[in-house]
Formats: sequence, structure tokens, C-alpha cells
Amino acid sequence: MHFADHILERCQHLSSRLVVGLDPHWDRIPDAMKRAGGEPATVVRDYLNAVIDQTRDIAVAFKPQMAFFEQFGPPGFRVLADILAGLDDAGIPVILDGKRNDIGSTAAAYARAVFGDDLLPAAFPASAATVNAYLGSDGIRPFMGRLDKGIFVLVKTSNPSSAEFQDLPLQETGRLADQVAAAVNRWNADSVGRYGFGNVGAVVGATYPEHVQHFRAAMPKALLLLPGYGAQGGSAAALQAAFDDNGLGALVNSSRGICFPANFARDSFAAVRRAALDARDEINHLIKST
Amino acid sequence: MHFADHILERCQHLSSRLVVGLDPHWDRIPDAMKRAGGEPATVVRDYLNAVIDQTRDIAVAFKPQMAFFEQFGPPGFRVLADILAGLDDAGIPVILDGKRNDIGSTAAAYARAVFGDDLLPAAFPASAATVNAYLGSDGIRPFMGRLDKGIFVLVKTSNPSSAEFQDLPLQETGRLADQVAAAVNRWNADSVGRYGFGNVGAVVGATYPEHVQHFRAAMPKALLLLPGYGAQGGSAAALQAAFDDNGLGALVNSSRGICFPANFARDSFAAVRRAALDARDEINHLIKST
Repeated sequence: MHFADHILERCQHLSSRLVVGLDPHWDRIPDAMKRAGGEPATVVRDYLNAVIDQTRDIAVAFKPQMAFFEQFGPPGFRVLADILAGLDDAGIPVILDGKRNDIGSTAAAYARAVFGDDLLPAAFPASAATVNAYLGSDGIRPFMGRLDKGIFVLVKTSNPSSAEFQDLPLQETGRLADQVAAAVNRWNADSVGRYGFGNVGAVVGATYPEHVQHFRAAMPKALLLLPGYGAQGGSAAALQAAFDDNGLGALVNSSRGICFPANFARDSFAAVRRAALDARDEINHLIKST
Repeated sequence: MHFADHILERCQHLSSRLVVGLDPHWDRIPDAMKRAGGEPATVVRDYLNAVIDQTRDIAVAFKPQMAFFEQFGPPGFRVLADILAGLDDAGIPVILDGKRNDIGSTAAAYARAVFGDDLLPAAFPASAATVNAYLGSDGIRPFMGRLDKGIFVLVKTSNPSSAEFQDLPLQETGRLADQVAAAVNRWNADSVGRYGFGNVGAVVGATYPEHVQHFRAAMPKALLLLPGYGAQGGSAAALQAAFDDNGLGALVNSSRGICFPANFARDSFAAVRRAALDARDEINHLIKST
């Protein structure tokens, strides 16, 4: 099924725009679990499986952050592969967040790892991947062209120093991120589905409302993936600006706020479910009140 | 020991500026080896260990390309970790080519994976890593500040579409890649060693001589890592422009040309050694003839 269509149908079916980020910060996992759980990768696997069990009917998609698996080495990647296989079996969409980027022949190997091809099956199967476009279109094209797969291109990120390069004013017109957004439109043009959105989306930080508004207008057919909700301080107004009149077109990611809620110590994984429900409802409320 | 000093001493000791890229393209490994070797990851491990054995006294450093291990999943990362451990034991420098990039707290996890920290030991230990600076300095700083470790920031890449964003003319002055080069100078300023080069280097494609000349002048204290020699068609004049009067300041990477030489079928891994010796000598000859 068409990637964006699948995502948007799931948004409506679950009445949710929430993506649950799986970022196993080692220093946030309670010490008691670390002591009881054996090898670090095993502790992480058990923790994340509990998070997934609590939120699988709330999350439109899960977004594992590859860095937090890479830090544990091969056993970390084994956990990631197992989690992806489980989600794949359950038909739950996954956005694999690796921000991969390289020249064409190497980008093809990264695309193979997540989507598979004639040469090898997908080692880390997912519905979509995040990619960094600094190397231009020949680093992006290997990820494109599969009806049922999507990408989210880094356009405007949510971190404090994102302005250093992304906001540089260009001689011709606009800023660097605007040129990346224009490229997203070109890459996305051939893949627009029945809801008006294509398979090439964009990462736009939810920190500043004016950014979201600007990039929503600049890329009307791109699914937006908004990080920065919760821990990074994304604002309500920023979120509102991301959705169309039907409340579609964007996904809101929360990672730390859901995996590691403030009241975890008292309520354990029930607190994870509560945090996901609250985030889902808060986002839905914002959409309806626009 | 200071990273750049170590690299430059090894350049002089071995009389080499050659970095051997470890890019296990699955479709280039001879079918007979695939049939005889068992699991794909095992075939790759045996192939790369043979390449390393043939070239360890010729290569200033090895540069494993993470994408080509990622495509094999957890077993591929196990092979990578084993190869890195072997090179680490032997004291041979490694530039881990992953072009990682993310917001600060996530970049810290990527840096931990390659350099280790108080929280976890390095899962994929290397002397240096390649990084992509699109997210700005807070995605780069977690990789900095270790005397014996280096990074190579993507400034101007070697692929055909690198111009799309990297060459965009800025309103103020220069092009995007010039602003990244200026950031490299700022990040590099505190880490300059006894040969005048610091621990924050730059990737500059060797495809066009004028680019290399331009960025050599723009970043006089940055070690340049030049991909694009051999298979990607880097030119002799481009290489010459990268070195200072002492024949120092740059490393020249060749991956496919050494791992998969044209006459491999006849001479097996002796052809790999011959290709590395030829590349080393050709580069040295160019440096001397400037």
C-alpha cells in the first residue's frame, strides 16, 4: 500500500497523530532494571518491548533512533532488528531514524539495509527512513521509488544550532532550508496519493510556529514529521500550523516524554501509556481548535 | 597521542598518504568465494581481513564504510566490530565513515559508539569519524574534545549532485560549503598539533582541482580527507593541490580500486597489494613533482 496513504488512514483509524520515538537513553533506564536485566542490550530490549506493548494502539508509527542502538554495538543492532521484525509482523509502521547520507552507490547500501532490494533483503526493515540531503539528490534517489516506502528529509531541524547552516540566506532567494524544501517538492511530485500527500516527507522542528507555518506552505504535499514535542519544548501553535483542514499532513514525535515519563518511578509502564494517551489527546485537541 | 600528529607521523614513517577504504560491495565479491564462504557476513569478514593483511604496511589508515556493514544487519556490525578491534589492537588508525549527524543528545550517542565515554565503552572503536554538519555545531561538539580522536566534516563531497546544496551562493559571501569550511576552522582552532594540523579535518572531493585548491587555502590547519581517487575519477592535479610543501596535510582514500582491483580474478589478493602499492607510489610521485 502507498506509504503516505497507509499512514494517513492509520491516523484516522486510531484518531492519533502521535509517533512514539524509541530512544533508549541508557542513563534514563532505572538502575533497578539495569541490575535485574542482564546485558545492557537485553535491558533495552525488555524496556522498549514494554513501551511498545503499552502504546501500540496509540502510536501511528514508532520511530527508533538508530544512535541509541548503535551505542550498544552489535547486540544493540540485534535488539533493533528484533523490534523491527516484531512491528513488521504486526503491520505497525516504523520510521527508522538514522539520518543516513552518502554518495549514490553507498546510499544504495543504506537504502538496501532498510528497504531491501534484489541483492539483499532488508536487514532493518521499516516503512520509512529519515535522510540528510547535504549531498544532493544522488544520495536521496536510492531511497525513492518504492510505492509502500517513504522518506523524511531533514529540512529544518529542532536543535538550537540548526540555524547555523539551515538558515543561511541565499543569494538567489530564501534560505538554505528553503532550497531543501524545494527539492523535497521535486522528489515528492510523482508519489502523491489519494489524500494529497506523497512518499517524500520532511522533518521540520516544532520549536518555532513561524517555521512550521512557513514550511507547511512551502511543501503542501509533503508529510511533515515534527520532532521537538515534549522534551525539546515544541509549542502548541507550532503544531497547529502543521495540519491541513482535515487534521492531516503531519506526524508529531515524542520520544523521551513517552519512553521516560516523569512519574515512571511510581507507576512504571502504566505511566508510559498515560503519557502517550495524554500526548495523543493534547495533539488532537490542538488540531480541532484551529 | 594527538590524532593529527599520529596520522602525520605515520604518513612519514610509512611514506604513504593512502587510506584504504573498506567498502564490501556484495556484488563485487567473486561468486566462488560467496559459495565457499558460508553466511554473507562471514564471506565479508574473510575478504576484508585478507585486504587488511595485504595492505596494513601501506595504509596510513583504514576507512570502513558503515553502510556496507549495515546492509548485512547485526552480523555485518559484528564483522565491523571485530575488524575494528583487530586494527585497534595493532595500533593502526581507523577513520569510521558513517557521516553521522543528529541533535546534540543523539549525536552524543553516536560519538559514544565510536569513541566511548563515562557511560559506555566504544562499541565500534576508531581513531576518527566522518560527520555531516547540516544540523550545526551542537551535532558536532559531542565528537570533539578528545586529544587522540579526530573527525572529518563533510565540506565538499565528490558526488555529481554535491553542487545542489553545497555550491549554493550565499547572500553574504561565498557558497554554503565555504561556511561549513569556516566552521571547521572554528572547531579546529583549539586542537592544532606540532605539524600545524588539528583534530577537526574536512572531507573534500578530489574530483575538481579548483575545489581542492580553494578548500586547502580556506582551511590551512585542517587535515583533508580526499575521497574520489580511483573509481570516482579524482585527478592528479586535484591531489597535488591538497598537500603542503612538506607533502603533508591530506589523506587520499581509495576503496573500490584497492578492495576490488581489475585483475583480482587472476591474482587474487596479490592484486590488492599491488593496487595499494601502485596507489601509494602514484600519490607520492605527484606530491614530489609539485
